[in-house]
Amino acid sequence: MNDNWLSKVNWAADGLVPAIAQDASTGRVLMVAWMDREALKRTVELGEAVYWSRSRKKLWHKGEESGHTQRVREIRLDCDSDVLLLQVEQDGGIACHTGRASCFFTRLENGQWVEIDAVLKSPDEIYRKKS
Amino acid sequence: MNDNWLSKVNWAADGLVPAIAQDASTGRVLMVAWMDREALKRTVELGEAVYWSRSRKKLWHKGEESGHTQRVREIRLDCDSDVLLLQVEQDGGIACHTGRASCFFTRLENGQWVEIDAVLKSPDEIYRKKS
Repeated sequence: MNDNWLSKVNWAADGLVPAIAQDASTGRVLMVAWMDREALKRTVELGEAVYWSRSRKKLWHKGEESGHTQRVREIRLDCDSDVLLLQVEQDGGIACHTGRASCFFTRLENGQWVEIDAVLKSPDEIYRKKS
Repeated sequence: MNDNWLSKVNWAADGLVPAIAQDASTGRVLMVAWMDREALKRTVELGEAVYWSRSRKKLWHKGEESGHTQRVREIRLDCDSDVLLLQVEQDGGIACHTGRASCFFTRLENGQWVEIDAVLKSPDEIYRKKS
């Protein structure tokens, strides 16, 4: 297939758009990361989410270290063509680097941000070096 | 309440963060817009979503023209403190300016973006001038 579909995305000046990962079975919003053209192309080719890491300035195959890959079931684009929405199967049930199911574990309650979701697995355990 | 909670948000250089509106009852992701500090503050005060319109460069009380306001039931912040997730009750069941339930009505199918969701109400009808 040709790459015309990639050009339909309204990439920002920095070449990126936000990509929401939503759990395909529960509907829970798991995380938001960023994609550039290459990340989106690789995501489609691989069938697993590949993002652009703004901090590390490189492509990031989600789960490459943690094992928590995201099998992509569907990709949607919004009406302005500048946000992507992915339906994913989250391997291990953990999307967040803190070891929580979702990165959105902090809720506003009476003028305070409160962390309300449990850590399912310690980050030390998730990211421990292979011996 | 004081405004410390507003300073916990990791506003980007342009003063904005993306805000996802998710239907509180169905879990459907309705739209992504942007908020600045004032938009988030007003959202909390009003109990309805107020965004920053990047195109019009002003605060935008969602539904001010269309009537499709969003009653905000919950606000969450992600682990990097730079994305907001709102659980909303979408008035009229239409979040998109195209008259669709969600702005994410376009799906990638075999290398093509295909509009798959129905228009529930014509934009002409939604935005018609008051006589």
